[in-house]
Amino acid sequence: MAKPKVFEKPIGVKDYLPGAVAKLRQIEREVLACMQGWGYEQIITPTMEFYDTVGVASATSDQKLFKLLNNRGTTLVLRSDMTAPIARVVSSLLKEAAFPLRLSYHSNIFRSIEEEAGREAEFFQTGVELVGDSSAEADAEVVALAIASLKAAGVDRFKIAIGHVGFLNGLFEELLAGRTEEQEALKACLLGRDHVGYREKLRSLALDASVQQELEGILRLRGGQEICNQASQLRTNAKGRESIAHLCEIWDVLKAYGVCEHVLIDLTMIGDFSYYTGMTFEGYAADLGFPVVSGGRYDNLLAQFGRPAAATGFALKTTRILELLGDAEEQGTERTLILYDAAGRDEALAKAQQLRASGASVIAERGTAEVLAGIRESEGMGSSFRYKGVQYSGLLEYLKGGAPV
Amino acid sequence: MAKPKVFEKPIGVKDYLPGAVAKLRQIEREVLACMQGWGYEQIITPTMEFYDTVGVASATSDQKLFKLLNNRGTTLVLRSDMTAPIARVVSSLLKEAAFPLRLSYHSNIFRSIEEEAGREAEFFQTGVELVGDSSAEADAEVVALAIASLKAAGVDRFKIAIGHVGFLNGLFEELLAGRTEEQEALKACLLGRDHVGYREKLRSLALDASVQQELEGILRLRGGQEICNQASQLRTNAKGRESIAHLCEIWDVLKAYGVCEHVLIDLTMIGDFSYYTGMTFEGYAADLGFPVVSGGRYDNLLAQFGRPAAATGFALKTTRILELLGDAEEQGTERTLILYDAAGRDEALAKAQQLRASGASVIAERGTAEVLAGIRESEGMGSSFRYKGVQYSGLLEYLKGGAPV
Repeated sequence: MAKPKVFEKPIGVKDYLPGAVAKLRQIEREVLACMQGWGYEQIITPTMEFYDTVGVASATSDQKLFKLLNNRGTTLVLRSDMTAPIARVVSSLLKEAAFPLRLSYHSNIFRSIEEEAGREAEFFQTGVELVGDSSAEADAEVVALAIASLKAAGVDRFKIAIGHVGFLNGLFEELLAGRTEEQEALKACLLGRDHVGYREKLRSLALDASVQQELEGILRLRGGQEICNQASQLRTNAKGRESIAHLCEIWDVLKAYGVCEHVLIDLTMIGDFSYYTGMTFEGYAADLGFPVVSGGRYDNLLAQFGRPAAATGFALKTTRILELLGDAEEQGTERTLILYDAAGRDEALAKAQQLRASGASVIAERGTAEVLAGIRESEGMGSSFRYKGVQYSGLLEYLKGGAPV
Repeated sequence: MAKPKVFEKPIGVKDYLPGAVAKLRQIEREVLACMQGWGYEQIITPTMEFYDTVGVASATSDQKLFKLLNNRGTTLVLRSDMTAPIARVVSSLLKEAAFPLRLSYHSNIFRSIEEEAGREAEFFQTGVELVGDSSAEADAEVVALAIASLKAAGVDRFKIAIGHVGFLNGLFEELLAGRTEEQEALKACLLGRDHVGYREKLRSLALDASVQQELEGILRLRGGQEICNQASQLRTNAKGRESIAHLCEIWDVLKAYGVCEHVLIDLTMIGDFSYYTGMTFEGYAADLGFPVVSGGRYDNLLAQFGRPAAATGFALKTTRILELLGDAEEQGTERTLILYDAAGRDEALAKAQQLRASGASVIAERGTAEVLAGIRESEGMGSSFRYKGVQYSGLLEYLKGGAPV
């Protein structure tokens, strides 16, 4: 293994320069303010958690966890999502707090294996958890809030696809009873959005023509409320029927929120987290091949931490949204340069303090008459100029002569 | 090793609940805005760095570094300060950027061994680096900005002690020439502020009475500009004299900034980072036994990353400042509760959306006439009330009767 070059950083992590930070901070600020408007309060949890508790409870596969030992020899992980840490807090520090709890976060997240595929090993998420409410209204609230959050982040064109893990489970249990392995293979195809593979797998199963037709038909179950009605016609069990009814009710609530233009029902959608137990959703921005938000209901996770409760939530993929939107424009920050020499220093620095106190951004630097002449020249027609890599909109000079600087 | 309980988190790290997060965010926002006012632009670097580069260059002792392996078998560290990562960025991504560079950050920092002493293994720092300027003005700028930053954070009563690593080095090289071990022992006493131990050590060295007196005398070298004059009387070498002259000039610049009331010169002060090469400083808040800010000049670090440059900076100990100031007051956020039943839902949720769009914070929940009556009762004289653990200042009800909810 070659030693890393001195200026290198690990693969899969990155530096954010001022333009990117300004944009990231803007997204963070606007989205958290939006969540605050829906009654969600921010929490911060540690970067490191116990492997045996949060690490195991998280939906991240073991090989994707960054692990380290503390100096007592206990295995820790870098958090791989915020849902499991928040479940821990709800069950410990907040165990006396009444349900429903509305919590938000903006946080960095770590996934070890992603670097292999050129994906990021550390990235930002901004999300919410709504704990202690099992209703369709709660699910609709987080979907509507995800839509409001994407808009707050500055994402204009996007679609949210909603599904329900109970629909496929019900259908498969009814039509492929006992054939667990085949069910899993079909689900894997759907998770990967591999419709060709799904059809091939179906044909290889030598099913009754009607069953085959029904299972192929679900690939077309994408659309508005009419999808719920179509799905109701399928042969399924009680679990499947409840799932469809729940989705129908979520749609009704989303109508009341006035956001259905952004939503489609997609009954082939499977959340990528093993802990989802009900409604799941993903949001796609126009021209982007991967989701910018994902979420769903996870009614069994809290019990693992000793405080059983229904829960639903989502996470914006903030780093991806930043890539989508690009860096902030060269900021409108009005910045003033104060040039001074030895004799003008006291007056110059006092002036700088006075301007900063009134909210201005000011850099005070030593200069000479030659420097000043150069700036005057470069100002051209406007009053804005660059000096030593910084953009300025104003110039004050305190060059009083005397000793050369 | 007992397995951790399911709701436990590692020792030395903590959860921040909404009241603490609100205060932490306020400090972060105000301090970064202050730094922006001085022309410093934010950057963000990865949590993980290579051990062989940033890990080794950082001033943190090896046993205090959190280490982990990536999936290629390379040793990584969790960053133990922001100075070394920023030096890496200045030498790589920003290698074409003109000096001086003014960079700021707000970041979490990791130190492994601290947990043993009940101190934190993960904590927040907010700071700046001014790279490419070796002048006394640059040192004074970061000291004056540290003062402005503490005020912006809400710390009212504090003192900044300024020293210079060259002063003690010059004095010791002159008066204890060649006795490296004794010099180090004396410095260790001063670093630990152990004046009794320093005097005992001095006596054990059997020095000339005049040398002994001179070395004891420095313990009294704390105060204003007069300390520089007193220090000039001591027997020292060229390095010592330059250091004192540099401190005198810093004091002059700080006078121009109008901040000397917060500053004292302390020639026995030794920065706790091995990479300091010149001026160092620490800030103490009234009633707090540990520093709330520390900083200094480190002119040799950048060369390790291949771009030699003078540099100076500081870090606020943001987590300690948060502890000092306490959580945010129960926020003045006006929050409205909208209670609705099945028949009133559409109207209620549309109203919630409308209020949020105008900037209000709104929670919409299902309720009944009984719930409403209970709230009316608890409202008492004012219009503010608590419901399910949340404080509200307004109530709207859409209970239209019909099917029970």
